[in-house]
Amino acid sequence: MEKRTEEGMRYEIERKFLVRDDSWRGRDEGVRLRQGYLSVDPERTVRVRLVGDRGWLTIKGASVGSVRPEFEYAIPAAEAASMLEHLCLRPQIEKIRYRIEHAGLLWEVDEFLGENAGLVLAEIELADPRQPVTLPPWIGEEVTDDHRYSNAWLSRHPFRHWGADPN
Amino acid sequence: MEKRTEEGMRYEIERKFLVRDDSWRGRDEGVRLRQGYLSVDPERTVRVRLVGDRGWLTIKGASVGSVRPEFEYAIPAAEAASMLEHLCLRPQIEKIRYRIEHAGLLWEVDEFLGENAGLVLAEIELADPRQPVTLPPWIGEEVTDDHRYSNAWLSRHPFRHWGADPN
Repeated sequence: MEKRTEEGMRYEIERKFLVRDDSWRGRDEGVRLRQGYLSVDPERTVRVRLVGDRGWLTIKGASVGSVRPEFEYAIPAAEAASMLEHLCLRPQIEKIRYRIEHAGLLWEVDEFLGENAGLVLAEIELADPRQPVTLPPWIGEEVTDDHRYSNAWLSRHPFRHWGADPN
Repeated sequence: MEKRTEEGMRYEIERKFLVRDDSWRGRDEGVRLRQGYLSVDPERTVRVRLVGDRGWLTIKGASVGSVRPEFEYAIPAAEAASMLEHLCLRPQIEKIRYRIEHAGLLWEVDEFLGENAGLVLAEIELADPRQPVTLPPWIGEEVTDDHRYSNAWLSRHPFRHWGADPN
């Protein structure tokens, strides 16, 4: 869920968790996402995302806890694909996103592919950082404040290499 | 002028020159531009520009001579202003852009302000890099291939400090 201020900036309020087991599976077939970055600076991240026939350009500012300013624009899928192919940093993120409802909230479970295979993260977007959240039984440790689990970080330090290159 | 390929990427074909004197003045009142950068990486520059009540988000790839891939999106002016205020790198570029026709081509003359005051550059966008160009008499040295005159570079190395910090 997003909030909009008078001047047009939105704030993404998000909490992120590890996933404990596979008991969340089977409730959504998921959609495949490909995303890359034009900037991985945490104070001005620029992400290109391709979801089927839809493209998105998303700009995020510095996080303060779970709150992060965000600007998002729909762009033609062909242009997103072209930026991913020619301009974005590599490696890129590929994942399947599943949307799973629990206790009235919609969780996004990201199963990473490729260089990040083996990693599964769950995110919940909130209207307010203090909003109470009933955690599903498959939710593990909270990693909201752990920068290693940001997609921009994962794109440069893929999960498969964490053992060899501890952060 | 821009060219569009099948996949949606456009190519900006541009030549850039120093301006020799003030004889170009008085033919256009000019518009004031403010612009900042979310990425100054020459292979994936991300620029936010505010021109009066219009905002633009522009992504450029690596230049090959005078040819550079470019993606441009109109965005709400309030969002451009918010990104300039809160997210973009500093210092930012402020300039007055004058549009001056000469021999059938439209030149853009940029008079820089603030930290880049004293610098005046003229640009011409072409349909083809080999297109013949009749240079106006006020045009000086060509700087198309001199990275110091890119706006992304000027935003970090303002013209006023060039004497103290030669590049």
